[in-house]
Amino acid sequence: MTQFTHFNAAGEAQMVDVGDKLPTRRVARAAGCIRMQPATLHMIAAGTHTKGDVLGVARIAAIMAAKRTAELVPLCHPLALTRVTIEFLIDTNAAQVHCQAQVETTGQTGVEIEALCAVQIGLLTIYDMCKAIDRGMIIDAVRLLEKAGGRSGHWQRAPD
Amino acid sequence: MTQFTHFNAAGEAQMVDVGDKLPTRRVARAAGCIRMQPATLHMIAAGTHTKGDVLGVARIAAIMAAKRTAELVPLCHPLALTRVTIEFLIDTNAAQVHCQAQVETTGQTGVEIEALCAVQIGLLTIYDMCKAIDRGMIIDAVRLLEKAGGRSGHWQRAPD
Amino acid sequence: MTQFTHFNAAGEAQMVDVGDKLPTRRVARAAGCIRMQPATLHMIAAGTHTKGDVLGVARIAAIMAAKRTAELVPLCHPLALTRVTIEFLIDTNAAQVHCQAQVETTGQTGVEIEALCAVQIGLLTIYDMCKAIDRGMIIDAVRLLEKAGGRSGHWQRAPD
Amino acid sequence: MTQFTHFNAAGEAQMVDVGDKLPTRRVARAAGCIRMQPATLHMIAAGTHTKGDVLGVARIAAIMAAKRTAELVPLCHPLALTRVTIEFLIDTNAAQVHCQAQVETTGQTGVEIEALCAVQIGLLTIYDMCKAIDRGMIIDAVRLLEKAGGRSGHWQRAPD
Amino acid sequence: MTQFTHFNAAGEAQMVDVGDKLPTRRVARAAGCIRMQPATLHMIAAGTHTKGDVLGVARIAAIMAAKRTAELVPLCHPLALTRVTIEFLIDTNAAQVHCQAQVETTGQTGVEIEALCAVQIGLLTIYDMCKAIDRGMIIDAVRLLEKAGGRSGHWQRAPD
Amino acid sequence: MTQFTHFNAAGEAQMVDVGDKLPTRRVARAAGCIRMQPATLHMIAAGTHTKGDVLGVARIAAIMAAKRTAELVPLCHPLALTRVTIEFLIDTNAAQVHCQAQVETTGQTGVEIEALCAVQIGLLTIYDMCKAIDRGMIIDAVRLLEKAGGRSGHWQRAPD
Repeated sequence: MTQFTHFNAAGEAQMVDVGDKLPTRRVARAAGCIRMQPATLHMIAAGTHTKGDVLGVARIAAIMAAKRTAELVPLCHPLALTRVTIEFLIDTNAAQVHCQAQVETTGQTGVEIEALCAVQIGLLTIYDMCKAIDRGMIIDAVRLLEKAGGRSGHWQRAPD
Repeated sequence: MTQFTHFNAAGEAQMVDVGDKLPTRRVARAAGCIRMQPATLHMIAAGTHTKGDVLGVARIAAIMAAKRTAELVPLCHPLALTRVTIEFLIDTNAAQVHCQAQVETTGQTGVEIEALCAVQIGLLTIYDMCKAIDRGMIIDAVRLLEKAGGRSGHWQRAPD
Repeated sequence: MTQFTHFNAAGEAQMVDVGDKLPTRRVARAAGCIRMQPATLHMIAAGTHTKGDVLGVARIAAIMAAKRTAELVPLCHPLALTRVTIEFLIDTNAAQVHCQAQVETTGQTGVEIEALCAVQIGLLTIYDMCKAIDRGMIIDAVRLLEKAGGRSGHWQRAPD
Repeated sequence: MTQFTHFNAAGEAQMVDVGDKLPTRRVARAAGCIRMQPATLHMIAAGTHTKGDVLGVARIAAIMAAKRTAELVPLCHPLALTRVTIEFLIDTNAAQVHCQAQVETTGQTGVEIEALCAVQIGLLTIYDMCKAIDRGMIIDAVRLLEKAGGRSGHWQRAPD
Repeated sequence: MTQFTHFNAAGEAQMVDVGDKLPTRRVARAAGCIRMQPATLHMIAAGTHTKGDVLGVARIAAIMAAKRTAELVPLCHPLALTRVTIEFLIDTNAAQVHCQAQVETTGQTGVEIEALCAVQIGLLTIYDMCKAIDRGMIIDAVRLLEKAGGRSGHWQRAPD
Repeated sequence: MTQFTHFNAAGEAQMVDVGDKLPTRRVARAAGCIRMQPATLHMIAAGTHTKGDVLGVARIAAIMAAKRTAELVPLCHPLALTRVTIEFLIDTNAAQVHCQAQVETTGQTGVEIEALCAVQIGLLTIYDMCKAIDRGMIIDAVRLLEKAGGRSGHWQRAPD
């Protein structure tokens, strides 16, 4: 029967044993978006090219958050990340900013949570910087796109 | 003309001056959800009442994340929170777990970002604990519901 | 009936609301000790006066830990401490080092946990620095001695 | 002559060189307890099985503390832990809660300090959650039980 | 006789008592620079206006470091900052980048250390981003320019 | 053409990929100094030998800062350090304290930033402890002295 690995037989939380896993190259890609008013998006887009670079600040926040994931998520194993890249895409039609994070390591566990955490904090930073003009923004569709490495192998999200 | 407060006239990021604001009682409520397979939700629901309490772990992660928001979001002011409550609601029909956070302080800036951060990390912790059985879960609709206190006064999200 | 304040009526953990409490001057004193082999104590005592100052390092660790208590203890309110002092006492007869911490703030909650955390990490640092020569050391009797300030008023531990 | 490894010949503190050690599998088990009034223990025991799960919260705090040990203890080497488990045992006769932590890694130094830190913060969290009803609780007997791995090999505490 | 306030009469370090000080508005301005090869400076200058914004990243690092100063400097009091601004100035003639930080709070102690810490980490981030092309860069002249507020009043560095 | 490795082709900051690098033994030595009034230096020198050990506190701060560098410098890779040593030298003639840090690891990236960060925070701690008597102290000449290991090999600063 399928069971949560993060609990022992008594139902108590634990940081599961990964000591017997071989260190392998791990990659995870996650994505998400923040929906806003068109005027807000316009301001972000304008700043990116000249001054007031909201996405530049959010990118740094996202990268730094990836490194601190294991401090925030209780049962997450600490890992020395070897690469973090963050991409933002301004979608004028949908009045959204998309964020995609790619995180890599060579280790005994995967980096899915690190990639998702980077996306979340990147989008939250956009919210923080724009909240004075658009308090109703919504962070949506934060999800894993792909992972590779480790015993469970390659996983890719099915197209919508 | 409306402008981002987090940039100066030269377009450089700054932690804005709130030194002239009066400390007032601040409240923020934020919410979000995580969508999953019905079988995953069933396992979470079963654990909550007996053993393997995913939501109990996620609640602690959410509360702790609220306290560390200013370390993660670059231009966010540090604040001594006076209250953090987290509620989870299992929605069997929609195969979702809803999360709602309420954060309070008496201070010179609001606690919206703290409430949103708590929701995000609470939901990410659920993802972490269930990912081995359902890698496709999606975190959705992370948004502010209401805020009170401060110069900008009361704000409430319009009903959908 | 007496109840845990850190849980709501549904039994869910929360960071309790202290927003209605008045900020008052708060003081807490905590203590504890570490028991060891006489030879280990002798080495610590020798270093304190000349070189290899174990207690000097432990004192710094204790002070710094007091400041980070709210990051470690999930439901503990963050507080801006106004004073932290740490005293060590070498008890040659009992082959122990005693540690006492005094922590103060002006705030809406007490600083008992901060004082206890300082004692714990101070003693743990002694353990760390001496473990290569005495792995069997025992940290004992970590307890609150006294607290003052706040609604619950003054409390003092009864003499043994 | 035996000397503290954490000081150089001039008596100055240092994070000692472990670069020449081989990474080996490391395990440490530590334990401790918190003594309280029987009524307090009764409330903890009641909550564990129904709602108001003090030990569930303390377990999460203990696991998270293990991961942050090197930030707290000045000369402790940072390590990527591969496993952390925490067990609580309610001892009604003695009016105590016992805590035991097991921590593992594959690395160049041991994880004794991480295991002791987990025990300390787990017990401190119990104190925090029960302090409103029992300020006199005492944390006792925090000690290493066993360690394995590394040049110094296997060590086990002699029975009392 | 003048004495260090951070030590007690026995010469033991302490976080000094500021509990009797009145909270006042505090401002500190600090500055420093990083010297480099003209070609390195040219690349930084080019990036600032188009893409590859080294100073934008360094500014965020500096702001975030200001908030975490009390975690790094052992006897520094934690403070809730109300404003942090960072300015960089490219000095082509001297082949230097100057950094200036202004930090403010309303509190019982000053923010000089926070301003200096922001300058240091801002300049270190420039070093990090340019080190692959210019390992010999030197961080120089990190100093307080001015402080206001508190019992010791206004202080301003004499002109060179 | 030489380019910043910390930006991609679009000029966006990234934590660069070191996943293909072999883990090698890495060493970095950095140095810096703090200039002060002769009377301040005299007090520091007096304390070092008897009581009020400013340099002892600063040494601990420097070691701890080395471990947290990757939290502070946005694009810096996290690394498990295997050794950190800090040396202070009192230069009475020049009224300066010199600080030198040596940091080592076995990893995929170097530890230059960690060594520089240790020097910076060590010197800042001296400033903090002496600021009440000498606000005009200046931190100077923070620089890399030498690095070894990794693809770029050995580098040593040319004599002045």
